[in-house]
Amino acid sequence: MSNKLITPQTLKGFRDYLPDVMLQKEKLIEIARRVYRSYGFSPIDTPALEYSEILLGKGSDETDKQMFRFTDNGDRDVSLRFDLTIPFARFAAKYIGELGTPFKRYHIGTVWRAEKPQAGRYREFMQCDFDIIGTDSNASDIETLLVINDLIEQLGVGGFTIRVNHRQLLNGMLEKQGLLEHSVAVLRALDKLAKIGPDEVIKEMGVTAGATPEKAQQILEFAGLTGTPDEMLNRCEELVAGNERGLLGIANLRELFAAASAVGLPAGRVKLDLSIARGLDYYTGTIFETFLDALPKIGSVCSGGRYDNLAELFTKQKLPGVGASLGLDRLLAAMEELGQASTSRTPAPVLITQFDAKFLPEYLKMSRELRAAGIGVEVYPEAKGIGKQFKYADRKGFTIVLIAGENEFNEGKWQVKHLASGSQQVVESGELVKVVGELIGN
Amino acid sequence: MSNKLITPQTLKGFRDYLPDVMLQKEKLIEIARRVYRSYGFSPIDTPALEYSEILLGKGSDETDKQMFRFTDNGDRDVSLRFDLTIPFARFAAKYIGELGTPFKRYHIGTVWRAEKPQAGRYREFMQCDFDIIGTDSNASDIETLLVINDLIEQLGVGGFTIRVNHRQLLNGMLEKQGLLEHSVAVLRALDKLAKIGPDEVIKEMGVTAGATPEKAQQILEFAGLTGTPDEMLNRCEELVAGNERGLLGIANLRELFAAASAVGLPAGRVKLDLSIARGLDYYTGTIFETFLDALPKIGSVCSGGRYDNLAELFTKQKLPGVGASLGLDRLLAAMEELGQASTSRTPAPVLITQFDAKFLPEYLKMSRELRAAGIGVEVYPEAKGIGKQFKYADRKGFTIVLIAGENEFNEGKWQVKHLASGSQQVVESGELVKVVGELIGN
Repeated sequence: MSNKLITPQTLKGFRDYLPDVMLQKEKLIEIARRVYRSYGFSPIDTPALEYSEILLGKGSDETDKQMFRFTDNGDRDVSLRFDLTIPFARFAAKYIGELGTPFKRYHIGTVWRAEKPQAGRYREFMQCDFDIIGTDSNASDIETLLVINDLIEQLGVGGFTIRVNHRQLLNGMLEKQGLLEHSVAVLRALDKLAKIGPDEVIKEMGVTAGATPEKAQQILEFAGLTGTPDEMLNRCEELVAGNERGLLGIANLRELFAAASAVGLPAGRVKLDLSIARGLDYYTGTIFETFLDALPKIGSVCSGGRYDNLAELFTKQKLPGVGASLGLDRLLAAMEELGQASTSRTPAPVLITQFDAKFLPEYLKMSRELRAAGIGVEVYPEAKGIGKQFKYADRKGFTIVLIAGENEFNEGKWQVKHLASGSQQVVESGELVKVVGELIGN
Repeated sequence: MSNKLITPQTLKGFRDYLPDVMLQKEKLIEIARRVYRSYGFSPIDTPALEYSEILLGKGSDETDKQMFRFTDNGDRDVSLRFDLTIPFARFAAKYIGELGTPFKRYHIGTVWRAEKPQAGRYREFMQCDFDIIGTDSNASDIETLLVINDLIEQLGVGGFTIRVNHRQLLNGMLEKQGLLEHSVAVLRALDKLAKIGPDEVIKEMGVTAGATPEKAQQILEFAGLTGTPDEMLNRCEELVAGNERGLLGIANLRELFAAASAVGLPAGRVKLDLSIARGLDYYTGTIFETFLDALPKIGSVCSGGRYDNLAELFTKQKLPGVGASLGLDRLLAAMEELGQASTSRTPAPVLITQFDAKFLPEYLKMSRELRAAGIGVEVYPEAKGIGKQFKYADRKGFTIVLIAGENEFNEGKWQVKHLASGSQQVVESGELVKVVGELIGN
């Protein structure tokens, strides 16, 4: 071995997670799992590596270029998954007979995209998807809305708004104008409204979808409707009058808003936004986007919608479904920007110092009593100067430091120091678990 | 797009996790996290992909061949990590100045090895490592033993034995015989004892380490010592008399067994096994292996030990440490073989049937009341025949099924069916959360 050191660098676009960030990330994942489970979604997992043929199947040219793709030792053309949707489609096609429908799953997993790294965007990130497949019931769309609501509420990032639209309402509008077969082109143009302005959008709709300026203008008016959901849907009803698709979309949205109100979601939490056109060639029904009130500019932190046929590339069985995906890393970045990032570097609130090496068994015994009561505790590994041990305690952010030496053990007592307040007390051994539990607010 | 379906297959050596297995896997991970955290280990994460140079650095020829290695779109030579140790070494070299020592971390992550797939062994599997670095205190070796003990105990897989050895005791023995510089060859031969028998081992030690038959015989006698830890260590003290390394190993082991006894680990839980020679060119102090009493043949489910210098390839800072790794997938396979595999396919114990679609808001409201009380509940998405909904309940393994229609809502009541016993009762709406909570044993 040469003596030259290897530079300990990560690849461009990849990152390490240090304890402070990782503690917060694990907390967010734990909340997502708890919410998904509380609705009966079960976890699944699929391999990070799949045959490229599987992953290429439905991707756009853009996603294809973003894949980490290579030939493995067995000459197979393989790729790292770039989302959890295609693996789920493959999974569903393979096991749906065994699993039965409706099937509800969540999947929390890493995905890889070889895109140009930008601030807050990495080539490796985590997605937290949940879906219910095998049913086209609007009850599942409503459930998806409720899951998104509970999820973001419990993640504790402050106020938020869930914006909802319905693809069939848009399609009904376009069908009435004879533009349905150009819907993708129309919606792509509409999607650029904020960026290029109404005049350019109208121009583009003319070029790519053959829309007359009048029709394009009407679509813009439709997409720009404001008011309460009821007011907006009443106006939509006039606009799509007589069109079945449009009326179905409206009926589903009415049922969704009624349910949100019936179960007591805060007023204004769910908004109808007819301009949302996400997942152009994928979503076929309800569409969801979620924005943080304090930081809307980072974009939607939880998005999804209803689709007609999840696994058409892999099976003839039609699997309609609805679901959404939490952008965990985007949310972490948002929390950092909002000053909600955690600074603790320890999951255990208590440090037992090693004041005198010969009492190590006593320190260990007390640490086990505390742990048995559900209190995380670390024993400092060396009998170094107490100042050094306190410095360690400060750096890692412990709440409580415990000290005991010859004198304390002779008297059956412990010194208990509360770091934030600086207060110190002497506690009987038999009372220590109780006192520490109270101090850390257990 | 062609109409030919793509076969929904996974790559050889890779697997999908269906809900029943994944629920159990998440449970095991959760327990591991809880135990690691209770000792003050903090989570970290590192990228799945690294520069090949980083990962190749310390690997043996064998691990190099097992790497998924390729050239990425930016012409970088990259590989998927094949363990969590080398990424941790790179991580430590990069951040230890910022993090300070001692540094305790756990890392639960997927690793990839292109080895020949065998029963229960996959090319993608999860490791759950924990380590404390930046200290050579034996207190950390003792802590590692206690973490392993709590971990396997709380995983609930029945009786188990932690086998312990100490590399310095072995080395002291070899040094006394003048064989220290051939220690790797000696230990490699010793490692084959069970497979090839004593005569062949003695022969191999002669060829590869230049050991006389007498010396080889003595090493075999040493490695085969039995008795209580005290008896064995007393005999070792005679064998290595005057050798500093050997005596240091003995002192550390004595302290470890004394601590295990002081904190009340069950008698026989920790055994001294002088034949363990794992991690030949890596471990330098205490060595741990853990065997399930009911299934020793699957090998160690939690192994580790002490090392001198974690990150020598990346930094001049010496980082001694100690830790171990839980073989999660091996444990899952063991639980399956022991009939401890879970059969539930739902994380939520309660199903609310959709008896009548018009009451959907009522079903949703009740589901939220139950969830607010910490009870997981699923609402069936369609108002299909009740028989179909019960079939679904049976298949997924719900504990409780709730039913209410026109009559029940008029009377303010719910039908509550306990699936396992088949018993059914009628409960006032206001009492439902309490009754269901009792039935599922909350």
